[in-house]
Amino acid sequence: MDLVTIIAEIAAHMGTRDHRGRVANYIPELAKVDPARFGIAVVTVDGRMITAGDADEPFSIQSISKVFALTLALGKVGDQLWDRVGREPSGNAFNSITQLEHEQGIPRNPFINAGAIVVADVNLGGHQPRVAIGEMLRFVRYLAGDDAIAINEAVAASETATGHRNMALAHYMRAFGNVRHPVDLVLGSYFHQCAIEMSCRQLALAGRYLMLDGRHPDGGRVVSPRRARRINALMLTCGHYDASGDFAFRVGIPGKSGVGGGILAIVPGVAAVAVWSPGLNDNGNSYLGTLALEELARRTGWSVFSPPDP
Amino acid sequence: MDLVTIIAEIAAHMGTRDHRGRVANYIPELAKVDPARFGIAVVTVDGRMITAGDADEPFSIQSISKVFALTLALGKVGDQLWDRVGREPSGNAFNSITQLEHEQGIPRNPFINAGAIVVADVNLGGHQPRVAIGEMLRFVRYLAGDDAIAINEAVAASETATGHRNMALAHYMRAFGNVRHPVDLVLGSYFHQCAIEMSCRQLALAGRYLMLDGRHPDGGRVVSPRRARRINALMLTCGHYDASGDFAFRVGIPGKSGVGGGILAIVPGVAAVAVWSPGLNDNGNSYLGTLALEELARRTGWSVFSPPDP
Amino acid sequence: MDLVTIIAEIAAHMGTRDHRGRVANYIPELAKVDPARFGIAVVTVDGRMITAGDADEPFSIQSISKVFALTLALGKVGDQLWDRVGREPSGNAFNSITQLEHEQGIPRNPFINAGAIVVADVNLGGHQPRVAIGEMLRFVRYLAGDDAIAINEAVAASETATGHRNMALAHYMRAFGNVRHPVDLVLGSYFHQCAIEMSCRQLALAGRYLMLDGRHPDGGRVVSPRRARRINALMLTCGHYDASGDFAFRVGIPGKSGVGGGILAIVPGVAAVAVWSPGLNDNGNSYLGTLALEELARRTGWSVFSPPDP
Amino acid sequence: MDLVTIIAEIAAHMGTRDHRGRVANYIPELAKVDPARFGIAVVTVDGRMITAGDADEPFSIQSISKVFALTLALGKVGDQLWDRVGREPSGNAFNSITQLEHEQGIPRNPFINAGAIVVADVNLGGHQPRVAIGEMLRFVRYLAGDDAIAINEAVAASETATGHRNMALAHYMRAFGNVRHPVDLVLGSYFHQCAIEMSCRQLALAGRYLMLDGRHPDGGRVVSPRRARRINALMLTCGHYDASGDFAFRVGIPGKSGVGGGILAIVPGVAAVAVWSPGLNDNGNSYLGTLALEELARRTGWSVFSPPDP
Repeated sequence: MDLVTIIAEIAAHMGTRDHRGRVANYIPELAKVDPARFGIAVVTVDGRMITAGDADEPFSIQSISKVFALTLALGKVGDQLWDRVGREPSGNAFNSITQLEHEQGIPRNPFINAGAIVVADVNLGGHQPRVAIGEMLRFVRYLAGDDAIAINEAVAASETATGHRNMALAHYMRAFGNVRHPVDLVLGSYFHQCAIEMSCRQLALAGRYLMLDGRHPDGGRVVSPRRARRINALMLTCGHYDASGDFAFRVGIPGKSGVGGGILAIVPGVAAVAVWSPGLNDNGNSYLGTLALEELARRTGWSVFSPPDP
Repeated sequence: MDLVTIIAEIAAHMGTRDHRGRVANYIPELAKVDPARFGIAVVTVDGRMITAGDADEPFSIQSISKVFALTLALGKVGDQLWDRVGREPSGNAFNSITQLEHEQGIPRNPFINAGAIVVADVNLGGHQPRVAIGEMLRFVRYLAGDDAIAINEAVAASETATGHRNMALAHYMRAFGNVRHPVDLVLGSYFHQCAIEMSCRQLALAGRYLMLDGRHPDGGRVVSPRRARRINALMLTCGHYDASGDFAFRVGIPGKSGVGGGILAIVPGVAAVAVWSPGLNDNGNSYLGTLALEELARRTGWSVFSPPDP
Repeated sequence: MDLVTIIAEIAAHMGTRDHRGRVANYIPELAKVDPARFGIAVVTVDGRMITAGDADEPFSIQSISKVFALTLALGKVGDQLWDRVGREPSGNAFNSITQLEHEQGIPRNPFINAGAIVVADVNLGGHQPRVAIGEMLRFVRYLAGDDAIAINEAVAASETATGHRNMALAHYMRAFGNVRHPVDLVLGSYFHQCAIEMSCRQLALAGRYLMLDGRHPDGGRVVSPRRARRINALMLTCGHYDASGDFAFRVGIPGKSGVGGGILAIVPGVAAVAVWSPGLNDNGNSYLGTLALEELARRTGWSVFSPPDP
Repeated sequence: MDLVTIIAEIAAHMGTRDHRGRVANYIPELAKVDPARFGIAVVTVDGRMITAGDADEPFSIQSISKVFALTLALGKVGDQLWDRVGREPSGNAFNSITQLEHEQGIPRNPFINAGAIVVADVNLGGHQPRVAIGEMLRFVRYLAGDDAIAINEAVAASETATGHRNMALAHYMRAFGNVRHPVDLVLGSYFHQCAIEMSCRQLALAGRYLMLDGRHPDGGRVVSPRRARRINALMLTCGHYDASGDFAFRVGIPGKSGVGGGILAIVPGVAAVAVWSPGLNDNGNSYLGTLALEELARRTGWSVFSPPDP
């Protein structure tokens, strides 16, 4: 069966589901999103784009931005980043602070909130937040080849007003010297990064460099092949918080989720996939998005854990 | 450069290393092993076997046996196993008991000791330990195609006499009803399983079914393709205890280590690799074995996180 | 109002209570006890004995035995005991194993199960369990002046068959070398110590030495004044597991509870009190027993935190 | 031997000690204090004041202020306070955040930092920090009968600039709704409260109401007898962070320490004692202060755990 049909059927199946998870309500702006939405976009290595459902509807990418922010930070400081952030799955919720106390202010990986805040601190680099935010936005637009990508200021403001746990994480790490700029500047930048809005189509396009061993489809090199593999590895082991193992088990490809309901998934050498459905499961990952990717992986045979041509 | 040369050079490089980690000393029998040993064996999808160093020297496979025990247990009870064992990286040491208290006696995954003890409890299936041990040994011999594989009774006895932490784990889970046979029978079976001795050559051969999407090279099916992928996924996310993320980051292929110094690594559709060097790093994984696999992955381009033909 | 009336009224009040907590069910023999029972006995510094309710009904003293076992162990090894057991409240449940992992097999205090198992290990002193059990029984009979005190073998056997968490604790500490005899011998001794049966009358009598700065009413010295104070201090800070702070806050006198529903409480220089009611609160302490002691403290003004003559 | 001689000798003994602990350095202003200082003041129930050493030297009372702040907060909201703060020893360091995650933003007791921040939030009561700070200062001056007591603004500013862990705690609890005013206002108030400076003489005088079952020596009632006992109970079980059990064991009277090196200790019905020496032990309590109180308790027989007239 061809990919177009598979994608269409997946979208149809998801539309019939009664249970859709719960929309994140800790950020008031996000709570307003209609839980019935579902979109999917697949861009293949040969440049085909296949979409279904609300694939052109912008949504808040939230933690998916951590992939792009990590890519930028590695470009700035290279492997020195790993002195300040670990590379291990956390075994805790995305906003846990306990681990920081046990490990002296060093977050376990760059995809939990604490780690992403350190990455934002690195990306700030002594500048004002607007400089870092501008750089991030330009980077994402370049990756996706789409200058329409923008930040939803209402979401950013909403997070600033309610993000007490993130403030706690940032202050806590600042006490250990692992956040180096003033906390309000770091979080100002971080909250704006999370408030970037993209459609499934834009997100899949932005993920192509991870499918292509670090190259932009325009031929430019975004990161080295080694770095691209390592980012994919981190997505697989840490991309779904404390459900990363389950995602690897059920879906079998690197992915990064966000509480806005999006997931970016990478099949190296084959495809970049973006799904979106705002209802979340208990671990804070898109409920239907995970199911859709599981069905996609099952029907296509896409998995990094099986022979290349199954 | 051809694979034979790469393997030979890796073995040569490892031989020149001063630092080799520390041999496990908590099992007295294991502490006797010469830290200068290093072996590697690679079996490719087209049946070639390439070895270097002490590739025919038997060593205690220890926790690598958890891969085979998991395969057997899934064959017995299928996905019901996941009611009793999780699929998430633990964020703790291999013998941690803290997590069990927080999660009501359910181990995080089948590759930490607690999880492997539950798997051993499943495999016991109401029989005497010798029955389960016999079944395990026959299974490993079948996978490797080598009836010379045996259990080192002195190592098994050594673990029985000193395995207080494993006894604590087993009693603790029995208090929650997640170990169902008497603890001494379960551990009797578990310690014998860990005391299986194999050479790198035998171990690589035994791992072929995971490279081949679940098929034995003789054409028989060991497990379904889906189950093979899932076992590979668990090896990647949980196979190196609290250094699993780092192994995925640096090496990028599923692997399972044992405190005897062995590592079994799988490149789906390409190769099954076994390395052995008894000195361990701080996380209890083979120090040189990890380095050797990192060099192998770098030089061959083998990684599940890069396009199939890099 | 005189003490006799107060005690009688307290017993009457407790008899009218609907909610009585839940009888411990993890030891099958204990689960058989009638939750409607309530007894109280107060022995004053001038030798008066005042009782009410089921004050002459024997019950399983369980963890209250830890007070007597600690007294014996300090007599054997003195302050060296504190190299193996801490003196801090635990902040965890009575049977928690997490703390042991964080603190290398050293229990936080001698009144949580792990600490009491170390104390039992000390009291075993190279002998068979029956020797240590005999010594403990003689000691308690001497303190109470009553040779009728005995061990309920059915309770001891019941704990031996079901005490998996205690076995886990003991094996875990043995892995750190902090249990030195074989686990089955230590727990054999420990379970028998817990299975001692005493009535409120006997228990209050046995507690007199702690009211009398270490002296037996017969004039003999059980422990030095300093040691008596220190045992009282430990009862206050650690005697009610993770509700010790609450007991100190509400009742204000040193006390030690047991899951059999008994509590021994000491008013230094004034009285020794024993209460018994088998229903437990969520922290594993007698529900009515705690209420009775709170009423007693309120009506008599007994508190170590107020001026001596309130 | 009379009390005057005992106090003088204790001061002399402390002067000869080589090891004096380490002065707190996390608040820069505190790090400037001379570690050679030692003062002690004892005020007895009959009004005698006995001092030795630097008893009239003001020092930063820091966490000792938590006793007075708790007294005020209980006056404002009564036992409703206990819906927001627990009464159990924490089993963790004074600035731990782990416990808050496990217990949904409810601090274990009012004497760890998190609990004291909630108390400060209660005392703020919708007003500006200067109102709450003024009230606190008036209260302490009234208790001590000394209007010279003042706040060291440099210390308060120093804490504001460096108190990242306290900011983390406050934001974390605000995420759970257990801090209700803006974090900067709550901490502004809290840091000023901690920056109150008192001499040993002033501090012992301020503590008299806890010796006198809640009465001020001028005859007024500060708190009810029951509340005074309960505050004393909390000081005993929680007053020295994770060394509270040890302090109860060795000294045997309620006490509250501060990182400025002061300790306020209460012998109900007998004396209020203040000691000061800026060097701290590993638990953050005054090293010489604790030793001095231990010697004082030993030589006077003062202990809440012994008969009133030993």
